[in-house]
Amino acid sequence: MILTVTLNTALDITYRTAALTPHATNRVAEVTERPGGKGINVARVLAALGHESVVTGFVGGRTGDALRELLAAEGPGGKAAHAAVSDSPVTDALVPIAGTTRRTIAVVDETTGDTTQLNEPGPTVTPAEWAAFLTSYEGLAARADAVALCGSLPPGVHVGAYAELVRLARAAGRPVLLDTSGEPLRRGIAARPDLVKPNADELAQLTGSREPLRATRDARRRGGRAVVASLGAAGLLAATPDGSWRAAPPMAVRGNPTGAGDSAVAGLLSGLVERLPWPERLARAVALSAATVLAPAAGEFDREAYADLLPRVAVTEQSSQPEQESHATRQHR
Amino acid sequence: MILTVTLNTALDITYRTAALTPHATNRVAEVTERPGGKGINVARVLAALGHESVVTGFVGGRTGDALRELLAAEGPGGKAAHAAVSDSPVTDALVPIAGTTRRTIAVVDETTGDTTQLNEPGPTVTPAEWAAFLTSYEGLAARADAVALCGSLPPGVHVGAYAELVRLARAAGRPVLLDTSGEPLRRGIAARPDLVKPNADELAQLTGSREPLRATRDARRRGGRAVVASLGAAGLLAATPDGSWRAAPPMAVRGNPTGAGDSAVAGLLSGLVERLPWPERLARAVALSAATVLAPAAGEFDREAYADLLPRVAVTEQSSQPEQESHATRQHR
Repeated sequence: MILTVTLNTALDITYRTAALTPHATNRVAEVTERPGGKGINVARVLAALGHESVVTGFVGGRTGDALRELLAAEGPGGKAAHAAVSDSPVTDALVPIAGTTRRTIAVVDETTGDTTQLNEPGPTVTPAEWAAFLTSYEGLAARADAVALCGSLPPGVHVGAYAELVRLARAAGRPVLLDTSGEPLRRGIAARPDLVKPNADELAQLTGSREPLRATRDARRRGGRAVVASLGAAGLLAATPDGSWRAAPPMAVRGNPTGAGDSAVAGLLSGLVERLPWPERLARAVALSAATVLAPAAGEFDREAYADLLPRVAVTEQSSQPEQESHATRQHR
Repeated sequence: MILTVTLNTALDITYRTAALTPHATNRVAEVTERPGGKGINVARVLAALGHESVVTGFVGGRTGDALRELLAAEGPGGKAAHAAVSDSPVTDALVPIAGTTRRTIAVVDETTGDTTQLNEPGPTVTPAEWAAFLTSYEGLAARADAVALCGSLPPGVHVGAYAELVRLARAAGRPVLLDTSGEPLRRGIAARPDLVKPNADELAQLTGSREPLRATRDARRRGGRAVVASLGAAGLLAATPDGSWRAAPPMAVRGNPTGAGDSAVAGLLSGLVERLPWPERLARAVALSAATVLAPAAGEFDREAYADLLPRVAVTEQSSQPEQESHATRQHR
């Protein structure tokens, strides 16, 4: 079982409009809702890959009830209308809170294809709710093959929360992946997670460097045992104890990048528990990510595209030379 | 008791953002929710004026549950956080349906003050649900001092629905006001409601004329016993069996016009059941409307501004001359 943690879950709502006109009244043509938040997206892709997954985090209020109901409908035999009905179960181990789960609204302009995103603030989590979560998390992590900590922190949760969760997973001897940003990433990486997956912006914010190889290796020095940076259309760049690799899709893909990073995380996690060598893990993550961009529905992946892309991902090992250069550079500062 | 009908109720959500940037991710700073739909807004203002009111229409799903809960919290002793807590009760006589009540989202850009509105489509009402509504409506209308039919029709409700509801109210001997647009207005007005309250656009669409006095009188010939047109900042223009009047606020008011038309309807209805002469009804409607534009929260009215404006509304009788001119014009066509 793979455990994914989404502290700031969301009810993701998509509005399709003929065209979004600011400062006017816009008629919404179609409304769809689904359970959201990065860890929930990761679990959905893991389930589609045949991995049993458990989602935890916080959920509350009417939007929280809607999220749980939709999550239950997505599993095998579920009645979800969309294409995400999965091969394996996503088990709901979300912790109830008094606050109300946030909504996110993606307004898709059907004329331009552009999306305008409106994200509500998350509910405030009380100290008692955080304590209840920790108890539940320790029990779940102890029987997980891997743990993924994903996304932003809701109000009320301390900024070192991910560092705390990394330490608990490591104490239980479970591999742990961290995918967050800002100060929670800075503190979380210092707790020595097995894998961090920043995007280019998050990596630059963490390390101060826009040079991906240097920044990725810097992130390792900050505590990440392995660091896999997602570089958009350029694919992934990995710095690991076994070596460094670049993995790139065979061609640039056009579509909706929503959820592409979450699919990459699912690819890395599934490869980790299947004990695949790094190049295979990276190829899977890149193919899943590109197949997510190509899928018509945001955050889902196109299975045919995935099967087609997987053998065509180019994975190239990076020499250790730049590491030494980087080291030299630091010495000259 | 005044009965207001809102067939297409809504959960009105307001998002405050620092600035709305299309095709980007926008963080919502504050979320507020309240029961919405024109008839519900009218009932809220009636309650604030001390009139007992009953709301009916359709409600369903989680958003419908939220709407009913918020409506219950607005009454005397209610726990609604916003300023609408009323002097008199708004009684919930909404009819449950299998579909889900729509949401409307008003995104207020705090930099410019502009609002971008996103309106979900309403739920589809089944023939059995419409039949259940009619039974309930007949019982409620029979004991109402006045009936107001407000807003758009949800999918599944026949386009002559308002004509049917007007006829039933008239058969019960109850005065009935109609505030809708398009084909439902065209058909509804032919059923001879006591009062219709179109705005300038609705009136032009109905009559083909942008000349308000001519169009208002044309609307009377189509079946409206009295027609009160709302002309935005210019106030109201009334054509009634007792004469024609213009009623204008003492000065132009700046603010959020959301709900100003609904406040005008509440002013007209309360004046009707209090048997006020037309000039007083119109003055009340204009003052309420302007006090709604001035209120900080959309759809509420500023009580102090209302008290201040009421004695200063200018009501001027219109001569019957233009009616004859209009008649002559038609003869020459």
